Amino acid sequence: MAYNSQITFAITGSAHDIEEGPLFMPKFDSNGLITAIAVNETTNEILMVAHMNRDALIKSIETNEAWYWSRSRNTLWRKGDTSGQLQLIKEIRVDCDQDSIVLIVEVQGDGGCCHTGRKKCFYRRIDGIDNENRLVLSSIKD
Amino acid sequence: MAYNSQITFAITGSAHDIEEGPLFMPKFDSNGLITAIAVNETTNEILMVAHMNRDALIKSIETNEAWYWSRSRNTLWRKGDTSGQLQLIKEIRVDCDQDSIVLIVEVQGDGGCCHTGRKKCFYRRIDGIDNENRLVLSSIKD
Repeated sequence: MAYNSQITFAITGSAHDIEEGPLFMPKFDSNGLITAIAVNETTNEILMVAHMNRDALIKSIETNEAWYWSRSRNTLWRKGDTSGQLQLIKEIRVDCDQDSIVLIVEVQGDGGCCHTGRKKCFYRRIDGIDNENRLVLSSIKD
Repeated sequence: MAYNSQITFAITGSAHDIEEGPLFMPKFDSNGLITAIAVNETTNEILMVAHMNRDALIKSIETNEAWYWSRSRNTLWRKGDTSGQLQLIKEIRVDCDQDSIVLIVEVQGDGGCCHTGRKKCFYRRIDGIDNENRLVLSSIKD
């Protein structure tokens, strides 16, 4: 991808336009956000789930680097800006109703993603209950 | 997984409890929802993105079938109830801040997922711009 000119999003159309039409018309939720899932191009693993507002999505497409909207900090955020773990976007996929996207990315820096130091944010699975019937977690190998 | 007794979610703790502790403590957003991504166990492909409220999450864990919350219809929804495309849950993964989950699923019925008839909801990619600088989509093979 390389978009030198100012990109725009098509205006949302009918259900048929959204599902079968030729245009990208992202549907932002009531908070102005779309769900974005980053997948490692090499391992095919899901790295993280985050959100983008309109600006983050445009910046991501124009720069080929993942930008997200931080809901906790209320700010636009270039992934890897401090960690070096930039996400180079190889492809952006969109779902039927155009309210979620998948980014196929090449991870820069040390190849990591999660702020806890792991390579991916999904490093645990539900794995049973304790004696208070609470669900317990176990680790997934990196 | 097989949970015969009444399961419960642990009360949300500190950031350290959430990221490193042994308990599942899902974090629902301001609408009471958590993001759920269904992945095909066999192909490793992302099938769909949906949302669960507390009831949908408990039902999914207790029955091993994916239940979601429909934001458009405001109702609990057993995936595949009418289509036969039930999602048998093989594993549930959770991310660092416990506000997103990944379901590794075996798809029942005809093996499909999307209401448009495709096997997965992510059947298109962003693939260029038209002469009005609108982003256009192209199909991804199933």
